[in-house]
Amino acid sequence: MPKFIKKRSKKIGMPPGTLVHIGEKRSERTKIKVLEYDEVNFQERELENVEECFLFKNEPTVTWINVDGLHEVEILGKLGGCFGLHPLMMEDILNTDQRPKMEDYGEDLFIVLKVLSYDDRTGEISAEQVSLVLRSHALLSFGEKEGSGFASIQERIRGGKGRLRKMGVDYLAYTLLDIIVDNYFVILEKLGEKIEILEQKLVTNPTAQTLLKIQNLKREMLFLRKWIWPLREVLSGLERGESSRIQESTRFYLRDVYDHTIQVMDTIEIFREMLSGMLDIYLSSVNNRMNAVVKVLTIIATIFMPLTFLAGVYGMNFKHMPELEWQWSYPVIWLFMILIAVFMVISFRKKKWL
Amino acid sequence: MPKFIKKRSKKIGMPPGTLVHIGEKRSERTKIKVLEYDEVNFQERELENVEECFLFKNEPTVTWINVDGLHEVEILGKLGGCFGLHPLMMEDILNTDQRPKMEDYGEDLFIVLKVLSYDDRTGEISAEQVSLVLRSHALLSFGEKEGSGFASIQERIRGGKGRLRKMGVDYLAYTLLDIIVDNYFVILEKLGEKIEILEQKLVTNPTAQTLLKIQNLKREMLFLRKWIWPLREVLSGLERGESSRIQESTRFYLRDVYDHTIQVMDTIEIFREMLSGMLDIYLSSVNNRMNAVVKVLTIIATIFMPLTFLAGVYGMNFKHMPELEWQWSYPVIWLFMILIAVFMVISFRKKKWL
Amino acid sequence: MPKFIKKRSKKIGMPPGTLVHIGEKRSERTKIKVLEYDEVNFQERELENVEECFLFKNEPTVTWINVDGLHEVEILGKLGGCFGLHPLMMEDILNTDQRPKMEDYGEDLFIVLKVLSYDDRTGEISAEQVSLVLRSHALLSFGEKEGSGFASIQERIRGGKGRLRKMGVDYLAYTLLDIIVDNYFVILEKLGEKIEILEQKLVTNPTAQTLLKIQNLKREMLFLRKWIWPLREVLSGLERGESSRIQESTRFYLRDVYDHTIQVMDTIEIFREMLSGMLDIYLSSVNNRMNAVVKVLTIIATIFMPLTFLAGVYGMNFKHMPELEWQWSYPVIWLFMILIAVFMVISFRKKKWL
Amino acid sequence: MPKFIKKRSKKIGMPPGTLVHIGEKRSERTKIKVLEYDEVNFQERELENVEECFLFKNEPTVTWINVDGLHEVEILGKLGGCFGLHPLMMEDILNTDQRPKMEDYGEDLFIVLKVLSYDDRTGEISAEQVSLVLRSHALLSFGEKEGSGFASIQERIRGGKGRLRKMGVDYLAYTLLDIIVDNYFVILEKLGEKIEILEQKLVTNPTAQTLLKIQNLKREMLFLRKWIWPLREVLSGLERGESSRIQESTRFYLRDVYDHTIQVMDTIEIFREMLSGMLDIYLSSVNNRMNAVVKVLTIIATIFMPLTFLAGVYGMNFKHMPELEWQWSYPVIWLFMILIAVFMVISFRKKKWL
Amino acid sequence: MPKFIKKRSKKIGMPPGTLVHIGEKRSERTKIKVLEYDEVNFQERELENVEECFLFKNEPTVTWINVDGLHEVEILGKLGGCFGLHPLMMEDILNTDQRPKMEDYGEDLFIVLKVLSYDDRTGEISAEQVSLVLRSHALLSFGEKEGSGFASIQERIRGGKGRLRKMGVDYLAYTLLDIIVDNYFVILEKLGEKIEILEQKLVTNPTAQTLLKIQNLKREMLFLRKWIWPLREVLSGLERGESSRIQESTRFYLRDVYDHTIQVMDTIEIFREMLSGMLDIYLSSVNNRMNAVVKVLTIIATIFMPLTFLAGVYGMNFKHMPELEWQWSYPVIWLFMILIAVFMVISFRKKKWL
Repeated sequence: MPKFIKKRSKKIGMPPGTLVHIGEKRSERTKIKVLEYDEVNFQERELENVEECFLFKNEPTVTWINVDGLHEVEILGKLGGCFGLHPLMMEDILNTDQRPKMEDYGEDLFIVLKVLSYDDRTGEISAEQVSLVLRSHALLSFGEKEGSGFASIQERIRGGKGRLRKMGVDYLAYTLLDIIVDNYFVILEKLGEKIEILEQKLVTNPTAQTLLKIQNLKREMLFLRKWIWPLREVLSGLERGESSRIQESTRFYLRDVYDHTIQVMDTIEIFREMLSGMLDIYLSSVNNRMNAVVKVLTIIATIFMPLTFLAGVYGMNFKHMPELEWQWSYPVIWLFMILIAVFMVISFRKKKWL
Repeated sequence: MPKFIKKRSKKIGMPPGTLVHIGEKRSERTKIKVLEYDEVNFQERELENVEECFLFKNEPTVTWINVDGLHEVEILGKLGGCFGLHPLMMEDILNTDQRPKMEDYGEDLFIVLKVLSYDDRTGEISAEQVSLVLRSHALLSFGEKEGSGFASIQERIRGGKGRLRKMGVDYLAYTLLDIIVDNYFVILEKLGEKIEILEQKLVTNPTAQTLLKIQNLKREMLFLRKWIWPLREVLSGLERGESSRIQESTRFYLRDVYDHTIQVMDTIEIFREMLSGMLDIYLSSVNNRMNAVVKVLTIIATIFMPLTFLAGVYGMNFKHMPELEWQWSYPVIWLFMILIAVFMVISFRKKKWL
Repeated sequence: MPKFIKKRSKKIGMPPGTLVHIGEKRSERTKIKVLEYDEVNFQERELENVEECFLFKNEPTVTWINVDGLHEVEILGKLGGCFGLHPLMMEDILNTDQRPKMEDYGEDLFIVLKVLSYDDRTGEISAEQVSLVLRSHALLSFGEKEGSGFASIQERIRGGKGRLRKMGVDYLAYTLLDIIVDNYFVILEKLGEKIEILEQKLVTNPTAQTLLKIQNLKREMLFLRKWIWPLREVLSGLERGESSRIQESTRFYLRDVYDHTIQVMDTIEIFREMLSGMLDIYLSSVNNRMNAVVKVLTIIATIFMPLTFLAGVYGMNFKHMPELEWQWSYPVIWLFMILIAVFMVISFRKKKWL
Repeated sequence: MPKFIKKRSKKIGMPPGTLVHIGEKRSERTKIKVLEYDEVNFQERELENVEECFLFKNEPTVTWINVDGLHEVEILGKLGGCFGLHPLMMEDILNTDQRPKMEDYGEDLFIVLKVLSYDDRTGEISAEQVSLVLRSHALLSFGEKEGSGFASIQERIRGGKGRLRKMGVDYLAYTLLDIIVDNYFVILEKLGEKIEILEQKLVTNPTAQTLLKIQNLKREMLFLRKWIWPLREVLSGLERGESSRIQESTRFYLRDVYDHTIQVMDTIEIFREMLSGMLDIYLSSVNNRMNAVVKVLTIIATIFMPLTFLAGVYGMNFKHMPELEWQWSYPVIWLFMILIAVFMVISFRKKKWL
Repeated sequence: MPKFIKKRSKKIGMPPGTLVHIGEKRSERTKIKVLEYDEVNFQERELENVEECFLFKNEPTVTWINVDGLHEVEILGKLGGCFGLHPLMMEDILNTDQRPKMEDYGEDLFIVLKVLSYDDRTGEISAEQVSLVLRSHALLSFGEKEGSGFASIQERIRGGKGRLRKMGVDYLAYTLLDIIVDNYFVILEKLGEKIEILEQKLVTNPTAQTLLKIQNLKREMLFLRKWIWPLREVLSGLERGESSRIQESTRFYLRDVYDHTIQVMDTIEIFREMLSGMLDIYLSSVNNRMNAVVKVLTIIATIFMPLTFLAGVYGMNFKHMPELEWQWSYPVIWLFMILIAVFMVISFRKKKWL
């Protein structure tokens, strides 16, 4: 349960804009990294002291300030103050229980979304919140822990080749969005494999455990949908050019990311329906097994009840039971009982119970 | 049932605008509290006599008139008359069976919504209706009982620090809405805990009682949805600036509350789907237990029916049954019967019934 | 079935505008009542002869012509002719199988809706069709039988107090709509009580009858929805001022009726979901009872089958069964059998079957 | 299956506009009937030779050309050529697997819809495709077989009375639509009766057959919906005046037909929900009957197992069983056994199993 | 699972526009065929060397370049470069996991859709991605393997008759779309036959296998919907003339294809509902069979338990059992037992269990 309802209650009654970190403490220290570049220049440094942020505030080059770790509220507060971020925006960055959204704060375009990761050991999905603030020459990105998968992008910037260095800050924002959405496909592949394994178990040997696993996967689909579905609107808004922060040329690329999100949603829907189908199969297989058990019972009872009755009859102590005296009674009765049993077995075979 | 269908029938046939209180009588007396403030001044008093309301009617400062208790219809009628509130508005304030809504009455903006509270003892949720009337310099708030959670806001006004004292009456209205919606998260946390406990019971020891609890929670979700869902429209209307009563600068804040409402709705939907999944698990666990019971029956019958038959055979009284005379018949037959039983047990183990 | 599919087939192939009464004949005679009023004057009379209608046609005061009983087609045809009502409108008035709708016929605004009534004896809901024709100074209302609940309004007009006498004909139309929609709440209260009773039965003693009652209530919800749902559109159309027949000042009041309709629909939806939940409870309680029955069977069989087998063994007639000769065999075997039985009972208690 | 997927595969790979008849051959010969009329004149003839069509092409009077039978592709091709119908339109007329639609081909308005008929013997519904081509002074109607129910309209035209002769060709088109939609009510009445009968069987004596019948009816509802649902759009398009072929005055009448279609759809939806409810009742009645069967088994076993055990005990052959010697043992044991049986029956009565 | 989630993960972290083939390698070599034609001229050649593409780039005639096989990334990269295709478009062409879509790249109109094929041996459906790039005088089509069903169109072009040679490149695009959509009907016919066979099995002899087949078909419907549903939007966009690449005259034809897509979707929905109905029938038939089994058990037990008890009674060894001595006891007891059995059978017949 704590997985998806974070304890917001500690914020109740505080005035809006109060900075409180809601979520797990995921990284040891808040790390601030600054990358500055244009087509020819490139500079990269770790910010030891948040007061130095003023240095990067008004550069004409593209400035990317990446913040990892959200629990050191004071440092983040200073950073926000330095760049003049709206208090509500700062509040949302720290409160990691947001749904994906895009908000236009005049000069700044604020985007919140979820980075998913899959723990191979536990088989669980976890979501980290990433917030982007896009302004004319700078992009601020805030993640809950180090290594949000942005390393490969920093590498591409350092490398200096490719389109990234030539384009503006909106293209950088697109690149971040693209890598986050691409990562969803990896998660879906993992889930797809899990479903496939579960499906085979369902046919060969379904147990009560299988049902719980199906339900767990269904629940994971719920959260995936919750985390990804609103992203559609965000991306379609960006692509339609609702914000002036996005240049015309970047829109083609955003349409591509939008497309991927749709595909992710399609796959989630299909997974959901597959899991529902698997639930039906599970339930009917439980019924089928009951059927098999009851059949065994019926077969045994139907064969042995008449026989036991017959044995009981000739165990009666009446004085005048002529059969008891006859020479061949005993073998005849055995024969008769065997015939009854054979007849029963044949009739079960006809009914396809055997 | 009375919980959600309040007896409106007593109003049938009355002309519109007739003031009748519909709902429980929740507080002893109607209490009217007046707070007047601007950035520098602050004044607070309890209104003993409703006729004094004229004093506060046309002040240029922000006036907040908070009314607790709705059953003293006469007093409320006078108050409404004093401020010239529309008869239909007064009717809706007293009829606590409204759905959340926003209505524009020209000068006045009328907002109805629900404050939820959770009774830790009974584990039940109850809803209280709160109505807000927003006009140029005054805000009237009407609640069913004392202590609607507005005390903390009054404290913030008294304290005099923060944005609240500097901003207009629309910001005050926002603050009230914010605290009400924030409170929904607390309710959801409580329900989340309940669901978690129920879920563990479902796996370890499901009873018919568990089913009723699941259904009760499902029903509570229905009411939560009924009480909260329409709020989305209200807030999105306010945020889009449909009413001139809301200043531009307050809209960012309303967007924030709107966002929270969406998150609350998302969580309710997820709870609903989780409860549906739990229902499936419950139903299949009932089937599984039946399966286990029938298996025991079948195992016992399958082992003992053939044996009993055999004992019956040698209980027959035929004169010519050679086996009866043999020396070792009895121990041999015991051995044979034990072999049959062992064979049965082994075959059950193979079928994984044991 | 006749309840909701009225035999329209008798109209097939007739040209449009042919007046045929479709529905039950509910009143003995068609009764036409005329009320004329403005703020000072008031006149009321029963129309014996439909030809007199010309007298009221062009009065400047508000004229309300209320018609009860729709089967005397000829009289209604004359009345329609006298007021120049469109043939299709007349056809719809007589065909009581309409869904609620509003139609603009230029000069006339035509509204059809359903008045519901609850038969306390049979517990059944029935719907009567009421049609309103609103023109500049007159309102014509057509009902299937006498006493459509409009008596209280006539009383208010006669009384002469209140807003009704001061306002125009559109306010009169609103008053009729208001009283009809208010009446829906009464029906819902009755149904709510029925559901509550059913729910208690469901927990204490569910029978196959309970299921049929749940299904019947579900079906009644279907019809309620069919009869009320389209009314939303009608009222929202009126409120938005789609017709010039409605004055600005009346719109606030229509918004209020619209609001009530939404509340009615909300409650119907909640009832529907409650009934679905009750169905689930019923079905699982059937399973639970089966479970209980099978448990009894298993317990009995598991205790007595081994014992009967044992008794069978010592009923065998082998010559050489040393136990038979021993002095204490019989009490020992009794003891042994009792021990087996006790052991079984204890193991059932552990499994919580007892 | 052939019922609703007609073999379109024979058309694959042909260029568009290729005329191929898809559907059953329903009538022996293609029959072309021409009616020409205005308020005063009336002329009617059977067209023996399709080349004569030129005679009727440009008449100022209303010309109705009714074609019955679609398999003589060549004749229809000539007719289409004579009137200059678009190749795609001709293709759709012959391909009787269309969904209802309206298409504007500039001069011509093309409407496709389904005429339903109910076979009283087999209880099956079949759909025939009717296409209408509406142009300035002519209406062409194409049906799959003779007697599409248009005979009564022809009679009304011949009769010369009524509105039909006075109005234009669009009113004629309306009349055809009206009679087709009115006919849907007849089909629904038949289905309603079938459902009613099925429902009674469900309560008195449900069999596996009943389930199949419910499913068959559900399926028929699917097809009805498929055939009628798109008609709503067609009629709402016509009514809103999307085509200039429809005169203002005819729109009131089309609104009426539109209304009927909505009512038909409402009824279909209600039938669908009723059938779903019946499915639930069926499934739970199967469970209930199982319950009853298992109860009988349990009662018999619970009564006779202890008694048989007791009889077995006194059938043991121990030498030292004092009871065997007593004078009154036998009647006492009988009494005891009867007491046990009576006690069991009473406890079953308490559990309401008997 | 690999069937529908293609391994996109190998692309993660690459900059956009990187050409990677995602999907199966379906054809040996990439084959490029060029057809040039207008009303009088026709030229056709296989392109051995991709550098020759410049020859066809700016011809005024209609140029159709058909590419079969997508895994030779380098060749396709060159082709794309030659025609100046946007990198994102090239990426989508190679990544065969797209959903059907239409994208406007200024000069180029980019359409992606799925060609379905049915393997008669395995009974499986597979989807191949086809991309179309439509520009002023050229159409480029990309398929995953040879023989995408376009051979018949090439034949029609070669033949030179018909509309195709006279019309522009947009009509060619329409022709390709038309043949692809027409092919869907063939797939549906195959699935319809499969459903029909399954349905008969369901009635005559349902097995656990039947359930799996139903679920498989349901899943196939999911994919069909995923592959076809978005096509509706594509075609409706084309038909409404959203792109200037489509001439007015071609729109009628596109409306026709759009219509077919709707029909395909209708049929898929009906298949889905039919399969759901079949699932219900399957589940209840499992229950019915269980019922039958339990009935047999109950009948046997109810007949033989009382009889065995009776035999047991007269097997007791009491000294004083007067019946044992009587002359006719034995035949009388037989008679009595037969009467009990007959009575039981009759009462089962009354209950309709036999």
